[in-house]
Amino acid sequence: MQLGMIGLGRMGGNMAKRIAAAGHEVVGYDRSPESDRTVASLKELVAALKAPRLVWVMVPAGEATDSTINELAELLQPGDMIIDGGNSRYTDDARHAAELEPKGIHFMDCGVSGGVWGIDRGYALMVGGSQGDFESARPIFEALKPEGDSGLVLAGPVGGGHFAKMVHNGIEYGMMQAFGEGFATMVKSDLVEDPAAVMSSWRDGSVVQSWLLDLLAIAFKSDPTLKSMPPVANESGEAKWMIEAALELGVPTPATAAALYARQTSRGGADDILRVVSTMRAQFGGHVTKIDEIATH
Amino acid sequence: MQLGMIGLGRMGGNMAKRIAAAGHEVVGYDRSPESDRTVASLKELVAALKAPRLVWVMVPAGEATDSTINELAELLQPGDMIIDGGNSRYTDDARHAAELEPKGIHFMDCGVSGGVWGIDRGYALMVGGSQGDFESARPIFEALKPEGDSGLVLAGPVGGGHFAKMVHNGIEYGMMQAFGEGFATMVKSDLVEDPAAVMSSWRDGSVVQSWLLDLLAIAFKSDPTLKSMPPVANESGEAKWMIEAALELGVPTPATAAALYARQTSRGGADDILRVVSTMRAQFGGHVTKIDEIATH
Amino acid sequence: MQLGMIGLGRMGGNMAKRIAAAGHEVVGYDRSPESDRTVASLKELVAALKAPRLVWVMVPAGEATDSTINELAELLQPGDMIIDGGNSRYTDDARHAAELEPKGIHFMDCGVSGGVWGIDRGYALMVGGSQGDFESARPIFEALKPEGDSGLVLAGPVGGGHFAKMVHNGIEYGMMQAFGEGFATMVKSDLVEDPAAVMSSWRDGSVVQSWLLDLLAIAFKSDPTLKSMPPVANESGEAKWMIEAALELGVPTPATAAALYARQTSRGGADDILRVVSTMRAQFGGHVTKIDEIATH
Amino acid sequence: MQLGMIGLGRMGGNMAKRIAAAGHEVVGYDRSPESDRTVASLKELVAALKAPRLVWVMVPAGEATDSTINELAELLQPGDMIIDGGNSRYTDDARHAAELEPKGIHFMDCGVSGGVWGIDRGYALMVGGSQGDFESARPIFEALKPEGDSGLVLAGPVGGGHFAKMVHNGIEYGMMQAFGEGFATMVKSDLVEDPAAVMSSWRDGSVVQSWLLDLLAIAFKSDPTLKSMPPVANESGEAKWMIEAALELGVPTPATAAALYARQTSRGGADDILRVVSTMRAQFGGHVTKIDEIATH
Repeated sequence: MQLGMIGLGRMGGNMAKRIAAAGHEVVGYDRSPESDRTVASLKELVAALKAPRLVWVMVPAGEATDSTINELAELLQPGDMIIDGGNSRYTDDARHAAELEPKGIHFMDCGVSGGVWGIDRGYALMVGGSQGDFESARPIFEALKPEGDSGLVLAGPVGGGHFAKMVHNGIEYGMMQAFGEGFATMVKSDLVEDPAAVMSSWRDGSVVQSWLLDLLAIAFKSDPTLKSMPPVANESGEAKWMIEAALELGVPTPATAAALYARQTSRGGADDILRVVSTMRAQFGGHVTKIDEIATH
Repeated sequence: MQLGMIGLGRMGGNMAKRIAAAGHEVVGYDRSPESDRTVASLKELVAALKAPRLVWVMVPAGEATDSTINELAELLQPGDMIIDGGNSRYTDDARHAAELEPKGIHFMDCGVSGGVWGIDRGYALMVGGSQGDFESARPIFEALKPEGDSGLVLAGPVGGGHFAKMVHNGIEYGMMQAFGEGFATMVKSDLVEDPAAVMSSWRDGSVVQSWLLDLLAIAFKSDPTLKSMPPVANESGEAKWMIEAALELGVPTPATAAALYARQTSRGGADDILRVVSTMRAQFGGHVTKIDEIATH
Repeated sequence: MQLGMIGLGRMGGNMAKRIAAAGHEVVGYDRSPESDRTVASLKELVAALKAPRLVWVMVPAGEATDSTINELAELLQPGDMIIDGGNSRYTDDARHAAELEPKGIHFMDCGVSGGVWGIDRGYALMVGGSQGDFESARPIFEALKPEGDSGLVLAGPVGGGHFAKMVHNGIEYGMMQAFGEGFATMVKSDLVEDPAAVMSSWRDGSVVQSWLLDLLAIAFKSDPTLKSMPPVANESGEAKWMIEAALELGVPTPATAAALYARQTSRGGADDILRVVSTMRAQFGGHVTKIDEIATH
Repeated sequence: MQLGMIGLGRMGGNMAKRIAAAGHEVVGYDRSPESDRTVASLKELVAALKAPRLVWVMVPAGEATDSTINELAELLQPGDMIIDGGNSRYTDDARHAAELEPKGIHFMDCGVSGGVWGIDRGYALMVGGSQGDFESARPIFEALKPEGDSGLVLAGPVGGGHFAKMVHNGIEYGMMQAFGEGFATMVKSDLVEDPAAVMSSWRDGSVVQSWLLDLLAIAFKSDPTLKSMPPVANESGEAKWMIEAALELGVPTPATAAALYARQTSRGGADDILRVVSTMRAQFGGHVTKIDEIATH
């Protein structure tokens, strides 16, 4: 099967290799001339594919994805299909599908999990679209997914793939925060001599056995205290979107929110909150510097 | 009425003045010779009071309160009474009462709210003890409390006063955090030009009208952005104790916990959590520095 | 001064009376014929006012406000002004202003706090718009606001009024949750005999002194245990919007979120979460009914 | 090697079988005559073992464990060893060790994870004690642990095993809550047709791959909506203890707390909070039943 892959960065590049390794023909394009691209423009990419074409867009969410899909809308023909495999917000998908539908261009969204390990381990894929479109692209999905029964799902109509991936990443945030809270608690306690060894021991037989724990254990080998890492974490958008979606659906997501808030706080997001708290304390405590010395307020 | 006041710091000193201003005789002791103490030792304090004596302990919670009460237990006589007005944990009160009971010394605990403003505004008092003991000490409570119907309550048996004060301070934490979250959100938005002016305007007519807001408005006059305050807040113990008590009682206190956690985080308490999160992200993202550049993981 | 008031429900009706009591002429319209309306249609309302007209829209946020403003856009003339005083989401305001601007119709948004007490106590007003428009409508704002220096603020450009009101309500959520957590903790403890009496005592002298506490104390008089109230609370939208706005601005709002989540949970929002938790516990515990009896898992 | 196993319930019974299957001699005791016990009293158990004896206590934490250890303290001899493998709070361990130390009886605590699956899969073990005692009991630990490099760790001195297990279970709470939040969000969305299928698909290739997810996928096979489970979850103590330990250590654990609070709330713990919230809303909204109908408050 033929596939056009747009975006040959860390994710798209590896995915293209895995698809090619499965025997498919991949025509790759990236806007960077230093990439492993096989064509130098979207136009060339479209020309290099036989109709009905299948084009996988793997570029950053937002403007880059929007402009790529807009440009493809002008180049592709009725019957062709676009799969947005980036981390687009699920609300973008219906818009993209609606723009492409009058032109007869099919659209699916596909959330992709697996990181840099996916090239060997396979990628978990969550797809949004029609059953028919899903079947058309199935050989590519099969090439990307891990061996075994799971790792690929048609989650629902257009938007469902990114919605599922968003939720997946929200869960991931919560799991990472949970492991972090456990590690930090052990670090501060005198009763646990080597928190890294304890956590690494949980890789077998324990209820918290997980791939994230396996990854952490790898990192612990070179830095058991993690002191080489800064106490700061960025956010990637998806947990935030999940919290917002859940808010609108009336579903409380306090653990996911705790995980996101910890990251936002690490980047200074709570600074003005603390300023208010300290100001109030100083006011009722009497404008003192060493407010902790006050026995009672 | 006669009262011995032990601890003449910011709280005890002001309270002694308010009690004296109401016409009572206050014998004051503080371990610091530079204080306004009237006697130079606990022994002298006991000697200066007529039986049955009423002694108010207003020293830091924990060891200082323990040792003061232990020393008084040796000096006082049956029928005398000790009131612990400091910020002791409520679990200390039953222990103190049990130690004093065989000696015939009465004990009450009294949570005191009001800060440096209390000398003029009056102090809100929450008392734990028997109805009889409460009535015996009522003139002193009346001198301390604000004018009006409220500001004084017999909350329950011994321990009830500090329990109520603990809960009071937990609520205070939540309220301060709520105001802080509101301020911080407005600071970051382009739609609100002067968050300090907005919050100050809420002092009349609004649902969030409160003394804490009044205090904040005072501070805003000299520093509308609060940038002079560090984005760090200490904790005083009581919110933590309330959360722990509630955990044991099966009552979820997420807002109070959020407030305490914000303070603990501001002092570095979450650093190791973030290190775990960043480590995991680096692992599945491929050990890259600019992990944010990865479109998908 | 002349004012058209659209929406004569609990809020709009009372506001109209307060404005009229201040000596202004109020032309009132409500779609219900049973209301105290002075005119029977928006067309009549516009006809009854002299240009430049000032029309205050006080109807439910969303569709009702949208359709009212759309209809007014057809009826009003250049130089007239609409104030949206309802609980619209701040994101609606720029849209409304943009629709009205080409027609020369001015627009302001005004968040209104005060509830049923406002007719006597005055309403706290947060206005979004230009300084010039604000001054034009100032007599009406002055009639609505409480006596005293505060209670009225020009928060920022269009949208700023509703943004400030949204934040105000978010803070209100946090405060209410904080009081609730304190009450619930005392109810469960043996050390506090009458939580209602304790909380009522805080109305004077304490740090948590506030209007919300005053209201609670009123309710305690007839129901000290609050058992007559169902353990369920609805949400009004604004805390949710604040949390979403803060998420986008990178500001963590855990206490506000805790308050909203408590309400969503009370309406069943967390049910499926608990089902997952119970299912997992049953799985690793062995499909038993009385899973609590398992000593270890 | 010889081992006395006290407590032959779901955990202890299975563990005894796994130890015996590894070739060790297990003398089992349970207070229930209907159990598979080999002896009918602790006295018989001690008599059946050759010195130095190794006795594993696997009974419910708290009173049952306390009384068992107290009784053993009278029966065992210097040089014998007790391992508490139940879910005791880590703070109990130092007390137990201190009681046994004067009698020359060694003590270790061991947190055990694995549930009903452990008999086949092996148990993850976290041990607190001295290196020497750990080595003495190592053959038993090796029999219980899973195959492979991990699953067994000497976490620290006495108390460290239960501390590590407590943290392990706290993390487990957070993970379960995170999965629950994700599932509940998908259930409410129109974009995901079969949340169970989506989550089951994550077992391969995804970042959230974990044993808990595997267990959930098993349950989904017979009940994809989980509607057969009540929306209620109990707590087992350990997450609560972890949160309390972390509070004292200054480590914020908001995700773990969110997980515990969700369970406490499901059992009615937040009911009085909601009553306060609803009461306040009714007060400022005007004692109305259909408070949601009020446009503004």
